[in-house]
Amino acid sequence: MVKKRPRLPKEKYIEGILEGNRIILSQAITLIESQLPDDNLLADEIIEALIPYSGKSLRVGITGVPGVGKSTFIEAMGNIVATEGKKLAILAIDPSSQKTKGSIMGDKTRMETLSRNKSVFIRPSPTGKALGGVASKTRESMILCEAAGFDTIFVETVGVGQSEITVKGMVDFFLLLALAGAGDELQGIKKGIVEMADAIVINKADGENKRQANKAKADFQSALHLFPVPESGWSPKVMTCSALEKTGLVEIWHLMTQYQQQMTEKGFLEINRQHQNIDWFDSQIMDNLGRYFYHQAGMDTTIGQIKAAILEGKTHPKKAAYELTQSFIRG
Amino acid sequence: MVKKRPRLPKEKYIEGILEGNRIILSQAITLIESQLPDDNLLADEIIEALIPYSGKSLRVGITGVPGVGKSTFIEAMGNIVATEGKKLAILAIDPSSQKTKGSIMGDKTRMETLSRNKSVFIRPSPTGKALGGVASKTRESMILCEAAGFDTIFVETVGVGQSEITVKGMVDFFLLLALAGAGDELQGIKKGIVEMADAIVINKADGENKRQANKAKADFQSALHLFPVPESGWSPKVMTCSALEKTGLVEIWHLMTQYQQQMTEKGFLEINRQHQNIDWFDSQIMDNLGRYFYHQAGMDTTIGQIKAAILEGKTHPKKAAYELTQSFIRG
Repeated sequence: MVKKRPRLPKEKYIEGILEGNRIILSQAITLIESQLPDDNLLADEIIEALIPYSGKSLRVGITGVPGVGKSTFIEAMGNIVATEGKKLAILAIDPSSQKTKGSIMGDKTRMETLSRNKSVFIRPSPTGKALGGVASKTRESMILCEAAGFDTIFVETVGVGQSEITVKGMVDFFLLLALAGAGDELQGIKKGIVEMADAIVINKADGENKRQANKAKADFQSALHLFPVPESGWSPKVMTCSALEKTGLVEIWHLMTQYQQQMTEKGFLEINRQHQNIDWFDSQIMDNLGRYFYHQAGMDTTIGQIKAAILEGKTHPKKAAYELTQSFIRG
Repeated sequence: MVKKRPRLPKEKYIEGILEGNRIILSQAITLIESQLPDDNLLADEIIEALIPYSGKSLRVGITGVPGVGKSTFIEAMGNIVATEGKKLAILAIDPSSQKTKGSIMGDKTRMETLSRNKSVFIRPSPTGKALGGVASKTRESMILCEAAGFDTIFVETVGVGQSEITVKGMVDFFLLLALAGAGDELQGIKKGIVEMADAIVINKADGENKRQANKAKADFQSALHLFPVPESGWSPKVMTCSALEKTGLVEIWHLMTQYQQQMTEKGFLEINRQHQNIDWFDSQIMDNLGRYFYHQAGMDTTIGQIKAAILEGKTHPKKAAYELTQSFIRG
């Protein structure tokens, strides 16, 4: 069992967040991620009160396979965004290591200079085994960050696959970080992720890599010509940068703000978010159903008994789940 | 709406699968993946009847980032497995492209020689948007394949992240395909995936890459020394191969069979599967809840109206989901 820690009254969280108190913001996100029903209920009340103050940030998703230099890129980019007078929140979706319950990303001390910046808030969120998907937790964390006055949000994700699709579904701008010379890797990701990107940034364009980075840029650009222009009218841009040498970064930030301006004028930013709200609704339904089910009185004990029977081979998981959910529906 | 296609009576599917009829096997997997309630009910009955005939295969998960040569590896490996007199089913979990509804893996014609092999069954499964997770669908497909007489099952997955954890949770043997010279990529995956692997295979160990592949092998081996020996007593093995030149593959197959033999003798294969059954139970509960909820009479219409209201900004997705799920629980 998770131990119960002391909680503030609802109003304290709401006030604290609206005042931009980062400690209280952090504590409220912990409520969202908590596995305790009472914490989730409290989080729901806080979120509902803060929804009217949310939605005013530029939400940026940043992805790329391991080794592409995401941490270094985000750290360098974050410093630029902060220098431009913006308040930046970084939410990192962190597929937790199954075995060690550790974190695939390692600790966030890697963003050393950034974490000391007063206008930057960094929050790694292990996907873990908590009830409810990572999608709704990240969405809700975004609401709190926006209510706390953060006007730029980076959502960082690892790998190629489902988590990208999840993140794409909750941001305004989706940035794919890539490497030059990755050869058929480029082929591999072309169909899935490249077409979701609003910008593809080729990192490590420094020293001897520079020429190759420019070649990769040209390759990506011609690959992108094969895709139809999206509804928004924004075709994905390809850029190069060196997070290490801090080149090309200001240009990327300007691209993002240009996107924000154009899409706001066209009304597309709003339309995009409305469509994202549909996905939000769908995933929220599943989260709620799971919560109601698992939080039933006595459910812990019942499930414990069933799992013991499964381990002993006395019942089949599919059959046991059928019977238990049937009785929930009928009861 | 999905159109209703003619279905066979339940007994025909069961008989057909038990006779090893691959067309009927394929049709039954389609029932599992269907979005129609009637199809799912039919699938459930078929699965329940076939559970006693399942569980007798070696289940192998194969993963690796795009570009690592997974298709070529599986094709080459599959031919060896077939030559050894085994019946092989390949289930590919395919994170569908969000935009085009296409497939990140491309079509399976890439496994040309393998798909013509009579003792091999290849089935790509788009993760898509169907109700219920990819986990239970793949698990159920495995049951049907086993009942159809397949004694070796490869579950292929793309990328680094959640899908690997899912697949690890349903196989006996987890193989990570890697590349030499991927530098800090190696660092990046070390914490998350490497520790889940029963074998790490460095592909493309051919021509000039050979020396580098051996170096990568040594690197992985020393990295693996840092991890504690798992409960099973099986420490992950590191091997090199060239799927292109077809070297090192027989050795990998022998490693798998050696694993199967050792773990069966120790009783660990069984223990591992019992623990996996616990996860199966958990995910099955969520699948069932989603099904019951969405298949309520009139739910399509209600959800349509709510989504229209969300698009017009008249209601907030979180609030609307709360109200709808509350009325489901209370009603």
